[in-house]
Amino acid sequence: MASDVQEPTTTYDEEASPYGELRLDLPALTALLDGDYAEIRAKVREGLVEYASVLEDAETMTRDEFRERVKDVVLELAATGQTGMGFPEEYGGGGDIGASIAAFETLGFGDLSVLVKVGVQFGLFGGAILQLGTKRHHDAYLAGLVKGEILGCFAMTETGHGSNVQALGTTATYDPETQEFVIQTGSPAATKDYIGNAAKHAQLAAVFAQLVVGGERHGVHALVVPIREGDTVLPGITITDDGPKMGLNGVDNGRIRFDGVRVPRDALLDQFAQVTEDGQYVSEIDNANRRFFTMLGTLVQGRVCVGAAGISAAKVALTIAVEYGLRRRQFEATQDDREEILLDYGMHQRRLFPLLARTYALHFGQQVLTTQLHDIFSGVNTDELARRQLESRAAGTKALATWHATRTIQECREACGGAGYLSENRFTALKADTDVFTTFEGDNHVLLQLVAKGLLTDYASDFEDLDQFGMVRFVAGLAVETVLERSRAHKLLEGLRDAFGSDKWDQDTGLLDPNYHRAMLEFREEHMIGGVARRLKRGIDAGMNPGEVFSRVQDHVVAAARAHVERLVLDAFLDAVAEQPDGDLKTVLNLVCDLHALSSIEADRAWFMEHGRLTSQRSKAISREVNELCRRMRPVAGDLVRAFGVPREMLRSEALLSWGEE
Amino acid sequence: MASDVQEPTTTYDEEASPYGELRLDLPALTALLDGDYAEIRAKVREGLVEYASVLEDAETMTRDEFRERVKDVVLELAATGQTGMGFPEEYGGGGDIGASIAAFETLGFGDLSVLVKVGVQFGLFGGAILQLGTKRHHDAYLAGLVKGEILGCFAMTETGHGSNVQALGTTATYDPETQEFVIQTGSPAATKDYIGNAAKHAQLAAVFAQLVVGGERHGVHALVVPIREGDTVLPGITITDDGPKMGLNGVDNGRIRFDGVRVPRDALLDQFAQVTEDGQYVSEIDNANRRFFTMLGTLVQGRVCVGAAGISAAKVALTIAVEYGLRRRQFEATQDDREEILLDYGMHQRRLFPLLARTYALHFGQQVLTTQLHDIFSGVNTDELARRQLESRAAGTKALATWHATRTIQECREACGGAGYLSENRFTALKADTDVFTTFEGDNHVLLQLVAKGLLTDYASDFEDLDQFGMVRFVAGLAVETVLERSRAHKLLEGLRDAFGSDKWDQDTGLLDPNYHRAMLEFREEHMIGGVARRLKRGIDAGMNPGEVFSRVQDHVVAAARAHVERLVLDAFLDAVAEQPDGDLKTVLNLVCDLHALSSIEADRAWFMEHGRLTSQRSKAISREVNELCRRMRPVAGDLVRAFGVPREMLRSEALLSWGEE
Repeated sequence: MASDVQEPTTTYDEEASPYGELRLDLPALTALLDGDYAEIRAKVREGLVEYASVLEDAETMTRDEFRERVKDVVLELAATGQTGMGFPEEYGGGGDIGASIAAFETLGFGDLSVLVKVGVQFGLFGGAILQLGTKRHHDAYLAGLVKGEILGCFAMTETGHGSNVQALGTTATYDPETQEFVIQTGSPAATKDYIGNAAKHAQLAAVFAQLVVGGERHGVHALVVPIREGDTVLPGITITDDGPKMGLNGVDNGRIRFDGVRVPRDALLDQFAQVTEDGQYVSEIDNANRRFFTMLGTLVQGRVCVGAAGISAAKVALTIAVEYGLRRRQFEATQDDREEILLDYGMHQRRLFPLLARTYALHFGQQVLTTQLHDIFSGVNTDELARRQLESRAAGTKALATWHATRTIQECREACGGAGYLSENRFTALKADTDVFTTFEGDNHVLLQLVAKGLLTDYASDFEDLDQFGMVRFVAGLAVETVLERSRAHKLLEGLRDAFGSDKWDQDTGLLDPNYHRAMLEFREEHMIGGVARRLKRGIDAGMNPGEVFSRVQDHVVAAARAHVERLVLDAFLDAVAEQPDGDLKTVLNLVCDLHALSSIEADRAWFMEHGRLTSQRSKAISREVNELCRRMRPVAGDLVRAFGVPREMLRSEALLSWGEE
Repeated sequence: MASDVQEPTTTYDEEASPYGELRLDLPALTALLDGDYAEIRAKVREGLVEYASVLEDAETMTRDEFRERVKDVVLELAATGQTGMGFPEEYGGGGDIGASIAAFETLGFGDLSVLVKVGVQFGLFGGAILQLGTKRHHDAYLAGLVKGEILGCFAMTETGHGSNVQALGTTATYDPETQEFVIQTGSPAATKDYIGNAAKHAQLAAVFAQLVVGGERHGVHALVVPIREGDTVLPGITITDDGPKMGLNGVDNGRIRFDGVRVPRDALLDQFAQVTEDGQYVSEIDNANRRFFTMLGTLVQGRVCVGAAGISAAKVALTIAVEYGLRRRQFEATQDDREEILLDYGMHQRRLFPLLARTYALHFGQQVLTTQLHDIFSGVNTDELARRQLESRAAGTKALATWHATRTIQECREACGGAGYLSENRFTALKADTDVFTTFEGDNHVLLQLVAKGLLTDYASDFEDLDQFGMVRFVAGLAVETVLERSRAHKLLEGLRDAFGSDKWDQDTGLLDPNYHRAMLEFREEHMIGGVARRLKRGIDAGMNPGEVFSRVQDHVVAAARAHVERLVLDAFLDAVAEQPDGDLKTVLNLVCDLHALSSIEADRAWFMEHGRLTSQRSKAISREVNELCRRMRPVAGDLVRAFGVPREMLRSEALLSWGEE
């Protein structure tokens, strides 16, 4: 595909460049991006090519046919072992959590119904059995579900409660007489809803319900409930179809209602709490709130996976748009007799390259996250604080990565014009299928508030009232504790002064100095978190209703969390670049990292000016530099997307990508 | 629907408000929005309700079935007269261009395949016959096409040329022997592509081709070419289907190739140029470029319509999201025993209300545009400058309105969570169908460059080289001439000084003073246009290739055009508010206009700070004020969306909008 790509017609003043002439070793870059799991990624890529026809099936088949097709592909993939990498080897899994994330991430280049069905079966359902269940559940289900012989669903969300899952309405009441739990859907709002695999294929459901023992409520717990035998829905259970969705129509989402459904006592996934034969509730974790968040915390892998999938989808979109931009010509611009290559237009570079740079940044941010997940869930790292940080980071990265996917896919579609609107060119599926990524596995705004809660824990003693009334419920969904040390504020600013020898680091440092980029993002993060804490305290002190105080400060809360995650992502990218040996590859990565950092600062330059960290002159200089970096990137843009290693078959776009071959 | 809406639980310090207690007369606001054409709008709303089932058909029917269904609906609408309002009465039309836009705009609440099929048949095809043809074409086709007995398509775009239509590859060569034109598709890139109505239903095509007479090329002209009789494609013509698209699948887009297709001499739509029997080319407009843009200029109505449709789609999305936000509760926030209404959260208000305010602004901007279109095409206004301004304004408004639609629909979907992802809740169709609005009838980036060209004409003498080499081709597509007077810069700044008594208007005026809002947007516009001109001149003077200069300045060019249109939109809103008599309605409109103006300034506050028109303190004050305005708007938000008058049936969303009714 590289052969017909056009050299840029614009020329540069090479002497003014800190990068010199760019040379890129494509296989080396691909190897760097693939990281430790190149082998499993290669295997998944092969599978993607083998089942490439599923991309077209999504358009041509009826919904019913496509659901069956997707199920079949998932089962065939399961047979190869690539979907079970995260399960223990004794149950037929691969015993490698990092590999399972890498496999899932790579699967995100292909049809996303397949991806989500894999996520539901192995990540959500399988994850619930593995993490919340104990040996008897593992023995009963894991081998079968890894092979795809047992299909299950994850029945948490209800029509009335998606974000506030602590308030679920379904109940599981223990009947000591029969030693059974009775599952009951209460009001219509307590109907399990949007449940993947429920409408057609699942035999079992991991049902989250308020556990009631001896008349006492103990909060939300999960139980394994058979819902179907063959195609027959079991008595007491009503399943309806969620109907056509914007995308992911190969996944059979449905609604489940339970009316007095009885399951044996050992259906309770009892890793964190047990009910004895005679109806005693027992848990090592006394605090109900803490117990709930501990349970949820073990399911963090789902969020890690959704973020990874968002980044992969953005890579596919960028690959198509950049390759097209390298071929397609429009308007005679620099020459009289030949139209100009789209990607030689400054505006076209501006539209695509900062998104490309950010995709690289998120890739490295995601890699750090995956490593942390692997280390903690493999027992390499047993530190409790590290676990809390992982949960926070997973939530924040998921939010940033999925919003990035939505935005990038949209911009890439527009950059491909009317051709981008034809389904054969993949944007149709990418847009429709990824749209819900910003919502499922946690609404992005709720997730960022969760991140903020962790950051604010330092300040918690300043406003206990708020914690009591507001924060806990606002940011429910997962426990995130101290992420920043109490003393972090001072350390940070001291670090900045040390690094630059004065407090004027924001003016003295060169625009391309990575220390400048890091310092800017750290300053913003710290200042925003402190600002939110002060605003909350002020409102509480003034006697306002804590809920209303929170509501008024909510945009600052979300902004602070975002600033935190942005800093984590930049750190990951800077660290990855720093680890590279000097050479061509490092030079190119430096350029991409500079563009990401500066375009990030540019995007929020108003804030930096408002807070005295950016003069208007320097702000304008940053915008000029971003344009310059885009021009610098132009000669390597093609290889930068090729390094993602999206198989050609996943791009489709025959007509789009045959420009220049005439 | 209003009965079950919740009163806000937050309380306000009413004394601090310049608005006092808000009261809204819903019918009066609806009447204001409906304007002069309330009657035709009411008629269209009735039709929408009558054919409401088409919204569901889009999901349940096959593509072939749905195309037929959409055609049938279009024909039935045609029979009522509401799609032909813009055609002369002697041919069965309504003779009222303003009414035709109002009807189309209202039709935008419904299924958008129906809308686009109407646009293709009556706006594009019918418009070409009406505007580019002469009496014999009118007599032959208009009555039939108004009734829907003659279906046609508009064959301009080619696979290789969508934006640069002056470079189309199809040729129409005059053969004096037979007095025929021979239509020929050249290379594959010259295939007519994405042509609505072409794949299935059109009998005729208005074909745009390079006219060749006596071996000489005269540029692009339009001819009427029969392409189909019944279901049979005529000899020499090859039509293929564009296949599944992201949306609008009720419209049969296709590709057309012509191989030596002969049409009689009078097939040429000869309003602006004729070919005599003996093969002489005659035109009153000598300059080929000017002739081409004059022809295209008569088709401006298409852009006006797409902008209007984008605004209507945004209204539908906002109606659903706001009504849902008024009913749905999540998390106990201010009370211990009851969850909070979504729309009482500050962040939720922040996400939706500035978009709602902007929708109002664009509505009034669009109304001014429609009036201008009506006056010029009805002969009320014959001023040539006014025509150029109309073309510029139509291009710019289309760009802003359609981007706004994309953004608003996305935000509204996310604000409705997972439920927004189910097709029954309309966001699926709204997203998929409107996506191409940013591309068709002119790519938004190209359109804004076109607007910029008009603004830069003042400065043209400063860089003739650029005009020769670059600008003309970059911004081709429609001629736009002097929009701003040469002396405008000085007038503007003088006006500002007069209005505020000093040059410190940017600090002395209250944040809610409409003069402040107007002055800020005027300053930005003027400064940006001058800045682009200076940058272009500097590059040319330095001896750079004009095309490359343009490429480097392109982001400034687009920003300047956007600033211009933003100012026009605000002006329209301010004027509409000023025209209102004092009273409750004016108070509410003032609030909405303030929110639009301040959130617009806030969105670009970095630029204002960089250019010395905003201190960091005042910038922060604006953000606080935007939050405050959102809180103020909360009690009337429901009525603000209800005033759009979107029929209940067009919202669907039964489950979403039944919250609070349990």
